[in-house]
Amino acid sequence: MKNIKGGITDPKGFKASGMHCGIKKSGKKDIALIYSDVPANAAAVFTTNKVKAAPILVSMEHIKSGKAQAIIANSGCANACTGSEGMEDAQVMAKAVGSALNIHGDSVLVASTGTIGSRLPLKNILNGIRMLTKKMTHAGGGDAADAILTTDTKRKEIAVQLKAGRKTVTIGGIAKGAGMIAPNMATLFCFITTDAAIPSSILKAYLKESVDKSFNMTVVDKDMSTNDCVFILANGMAKNNTLRGKDEKEFKQALDHVCIYLAKEIARDGEGATKMIEVKVAGARSANDAKLIARAVAGSDLVKSAIFGEDPNFGRIMAALGNSGADVKQEHVNVFIGGIQVVSGGKSVFFDQNIAKKHMKGKEVLINIMLGHGTSMATAWGCDLTYDYVKINAKYHT
Amino acid sequence: MKNIKGGITDPKGFKASGMHCGIKKSGKKDIALIYSDVPANAAAVFTTNKVKAAPILVSMEHIKSGKAQAIIANSGCANACTGSEGMEDAQVMAKAVGSALNIHGDSVLVASTGTIGSRLPLKNILNGIRMLTKKMTHAGGGDAADAILTTDTKRKEIAVQLKAGRKTVTIGGIAKGAGMIAPNMATLFCFITTDAAIPSSILKAYLKESVDKSFNMTVVDKDMSTNDCVFILANGMAKNNTLRGKDEKEFKQALDHVCIYLAKEIARDGEGATKMIEVKVAGARSANDAKLIARAVAGSDLVKSAIFGEDPNFGRIMAALGNSGADVKQEHVNVFIGGIQVVSGGKSVFFDQNIAKKHMKGKEVLINIMLGHGTSMATAWGCDLTYDYVKINAKYHT
Repeated sequence: MKNIKGGITDPKGFKASGMHCGIKKSGKKDIALIYSDVPANAAAVFTTNKVKAAPILVSMEHIKSGKAQAIIANSGCANACTGSEGMEDAQVMAKAVGSALNIHGDSVLVASTGTIGSRLPLKNILNGIRMLTKKMTHAGGGDAADAILTTDTKRKEIAVQLKAGRKTVTIGGIAKGAGMIAPNMATLFCFITTDAAIPSSILKAYLKESVDKSFNMTVVDKDMSTNDCVFILANGMAKNNTLRGKDEKEFKQALDHVCIYLAKEIARDGEGATKMIEVKVAGARSANDAKLIARAVAGSDLVKSAIFGEDPNFGRIMAALGNSGADVKQEHVNVFIGGIQVVSGGKSVFFDQNIAKKHMKGKEVLINIMLGHGTSMATAWGCDLTYDYVKINAKYHT
Repeated sequence: MKNIKGGITDPKGFKASGMHCGIKKSGKKDIALIYSDVPANAAAVFTTNKVKAAPILVSMEHIKSGKAQAIIANSGCANACTGSEGMEDAQVMAKAVGSALNIHGDSVLVASTGTIGSRLPLKNILNGIRMLTKKMTHAGGGDAADAILTTDTKRKEIAVQLKAGRKTVTIGGIAKGAGMIAPNMATLFCFITTDAAIPSSILKAYLKESVDKSFNMTVVDKDMSTNDCVFILANGMAKNNTLRGKDEKEFKQALDHVCIYLAKEIARDGEGATKMIEVKVAGARSANDAKLIARAVAGSDLVKSAIFGEDPNFGRIMAALGNSGADVKQEHVNVFIGGIQVVSGGKSVFFDQNIAKKHMKGKEVLINIMLGHGTSMATAWGCDLTYDYVKINAKYHT
């Protein structure tokens, strides 16, 4: 597998476009279209929030067939808490894309993000859809990546290539997300395209596994969106044989890589963040315990504040891991910050504060936790809690 | 029941003292003693954190008898993550109090709060204990209340009186807590004294019920302390008959009142807080669902930030309640901010932003959630998320 420059329009047969249609007052791009030249096998993971936005409910219906050919997504308005009118709006979006592209409306997945509680400006969106279908190209992935952003400060995209037999398979992905990031089942937007030939039932299993290791291990503020979704379209244009053995393994690794890269980009770009936090847990009694602990430490407001303050505050790490719900034997816990041991056998140890602080001055802070209680491992990603997080969320109605 | 001025030394037969012994660099009071003239029935609730400080482990042993006669508590050092040496230090504290007061060391409950990972300055503490036992008086409750504070900005105390038959029963309470406040089983310190005659098994049941309605419904940052504990001593000096019927009901109400008052004081004084948030949930399918939702909304960083910004952001309330783990039927949810309806049947409704904002400018923000899904209710308390929360926790090693 190798990284290549690009994103979702690098796999064969995918076009995309992104533009401003009039939802965002800033004039920034706010609507994106992704299209496969041929019907694609598709899979999705949705927010587990009990309050689900209209586009989520519509896309949950449309994905049932395991097929999709286009994704229409807007930013600036979430179309959530909008009742039956909102449901109609989301359906109209799918139908409009279908008509313009001469495909069935049911083969269009819909996603919206932005302010909750407002109706979509449907006229602007329908105009936008007309333009997007005309503008879409095999080089439009970057525009689409830009058009799904909200409080993000930068575009998030990636493309990788691998060999499957004698065929080249490409996977591309874009994501958006900076706030309202919780680690339970799907976070934010992530749209993945691939030209691999994969049955949709298998695609669904692969996606679930990759999401569990990536977006489900990313936390900014423990708030969960009403609009989160991850979509993958696999259009088969790479003409590979059924992925088996080494090829299957490599494809899954590549998909993990795409998802983990985008998840880390989201953590790095968390609202107000100045540092990314990586928490690696080893020696847990079960995989679930390892995940609980990694996410609890990465998500603790007190740990996050200490990291913003560049303070190697192991006490808060100990408090957070004890409160994760996982089984912990206090007297076996070892904690390292940037490789420097700060807790041994559950007890604070003397360490050079200056070396630890030097590590914490960097853009990435690494916390290793050894539980001495089993063999399971997990990694979670988060970011520090800063004045700017409060500013962004107190001063702006997002 | 009536409120009276005072605190833990107002019930008959309780003495207390508080002073600076040298733990806090600020020179503020940092050690407190509470003493009952006669052995008291006692009960406690402890943190459920898997990482427990030494004083918690020692007090868990000492409370097993259902009897206690004194509480020794210090602030400025938590004696957590201090291994077997920390256990010895906590035991030495209890023994020293026992020797000075001529009671058994096992009848002394120990509590410590402050920085995690440092050993106690035992020499200062032993000096402090000697002084405290000499200084304690029937008017020393306020000094003790001051000596348990950490990042709190003010003393938290209350006393109430009620009639039990022809006898007057008094309950007093003090608390401390501002950060590391999670709503699961016991939060922070709360020490309650009463001269009521109550068997310890019944006292334990009463305390658990009151804590569930108060401290377990209070959230500042969802981080849970390693040192939380609530203690109650009932010394029987009011000489009341067994509490039954109306008397029992009134006593339980009075204990609820003391705990809820102190819990709200803690929410109001949350680190960096400018406003208290009260979330009332009605119409839930079960009591547990009502609690989950009330706590999820009161604890959401995004809701808390919006309240700091005085923004009636119902979308974040909807996202938080959908993500609480409770059963929610989106289309039946009604939400009110300061009595103004902002969501009806899961859908945003037009409302006067200025009236809502005016309510949010006050010191207390009230959120009512009607689920239309059952008959269960719950109330939770929290506070806004502010620049000062970040400052306090990034700039100081607490």
